[in-house]
Amino acid sequence: MSRPIAIIGGTGPAGMGLAWRWARAGEAVIIGSRDARRAQQTAEAIRQRVGPSAQVSGLDNAAACAASDLLVLTVPFQGQATLLKQLKSAMRPGSVLIDATVPLAASVGGRSSRTMGVWQGSAAQQAAELVPKGVMVVAAFQNLSAHLLNQDHDIDGDVIVCSDDPHATQVAMELAAKIPRVRAIDGGKLENARILEQITALLIGLSSRYKGHGGVRITGLPDAAYKSLTK
Amino acid sequence: MSRPIAIIGGTGPAGMGLAWRWARAGEAVIIGSRDARRAQQTAEAIRQRVGPSAQVSGLDNAAACAASDLLVLTVPFQGQATLLKQLKSAMRPGSVLIDATVPLAASVGGRSSRTMGVWQGSAAQQAAELVPKGVMVVAAFQNLSAHLLNQDHDIDGDVIVCSDDPHATQVAMELAAKIPRVRAIDGGKLENARILEQITALLIGLSSRYKGHGGVRITGLPDAAYKSLTK
Repeated sequence: MSRPIAIIGGTGPAGMGLAWRWARAGEAVIIGSRDARRAQQTAEAIRQRVGPSAQVSGLDNAAACAASDLLVLTVPFQGQATLLKQLKSAMRPGSVLIDATVPLAASVGGRSSRTMGVWQGSAAQQAAELVPKGVMVVAAFQNLSAHLLNQDHDIDGDVIVCSDDPHATQVAMELAAKIPRVRAIDGGKLENARILEQITALLIGLSSRYKGHGGVRITGLPDAAYKSLTK
Repeated sequence: MSRPIAIIGGTGPAGMGLAWRWARAGEAVIIGSRDARRAQQTAEAIRQRVGPSAQVSGLDNAAACAASDLLVLTVPFQGQATLLKQLKSAMRPGSVLIDATVPLAASVGGRSSRTMGVWQGSAAQQAAELVPKGVMVVAAFQNLSAHLLNQDHDIDGDVIVCSDDPHATQVAMELAAKIPRVRAIDGGKLENARILEQITALLIGLSSRYKGHGGVRITGLPDAAYKSLTK
């Protein structure tokens, strides 16, 4: 891919971990944040970690959004809708928005091992309702541990990708496959995002109970179902 | 375990597959069915497959229920509530009921890759509301492919077990671990059954899209989180 990946809310653990993985894979990454200075600091930290070849910059969220047509949203659920409304005018038709938001009950003071019901069915479907016409939403990356994303070693986990747009699914699967050992799987329509989001809550509960960093692998499918760089 | 395992609705593919796996592991199994003759035929087929050591019998559901305090429920969702009400008087306090029911939308003519909302939160929680006092409900075994259960070879999949009763969790985990290569994981409270049930719908969608028999593995937890016979 030649276009940069703009990670909206990219200074949090999940966004930083994805930025680090993609920068290391040679992708150009723009870190977006409410605070442009914080975005630049995070970008600088990743550049130092990846080395001189790294293409990572930091901008405020709106500028990051305007600078790319490949957007990844990694914000807590309580900020998702407001942010998407703010960014609406900065998004270009034809863009792909990869949404990793999970409606954890922690957003309203509850547990992070539970989800809340979202009227549209899932956080990703809420995102699809809020983006301008012509922006394709795809749900992915909810189930990779932020902790593990920020480490050096490979990740034992699959990324299930859900979208109503085959092109958006393809783009997200390619990005997932750039993380060593991660496999991307087409999980069907965007409506299935509700299942991915609930799996996150289950993994958070398991990780807390067992002091681990839970992930998920899908078994029993033919090889053609899995897209990955490492076989 | 010395007590028999009564599989209620044991003539369907999932019940038969579990019966075959447990009979092969040396467990005594009672197949339950609405039709006692059908239950006996299924039991006979499993006995022939396992060999002369097999302890498998067939009874009508109520008799199967009365004959054991370890019950496994493998019926389609549309039959679950009615059957549990019918069996209420046959269940003994202190019994463990392992519920594998999934509220697939196919129950009401919809898709088997979608679930329906159940008022109590999940089919397993509905079961917990319908059993007599003193019967402990545990959700498990929704995510092992019935097709693979009925094969000879080992299964690449985990069984996540959810219950509010630690003893019931333990019993279900031990039964899961008797299936070669399957690992049992404590998934926490019964309320989490809603996530397990939705994973089934996701796996059905993936299996249909890719012509496979999907299962799930949880990664990233320490070894102590997994209970299995085969390491």
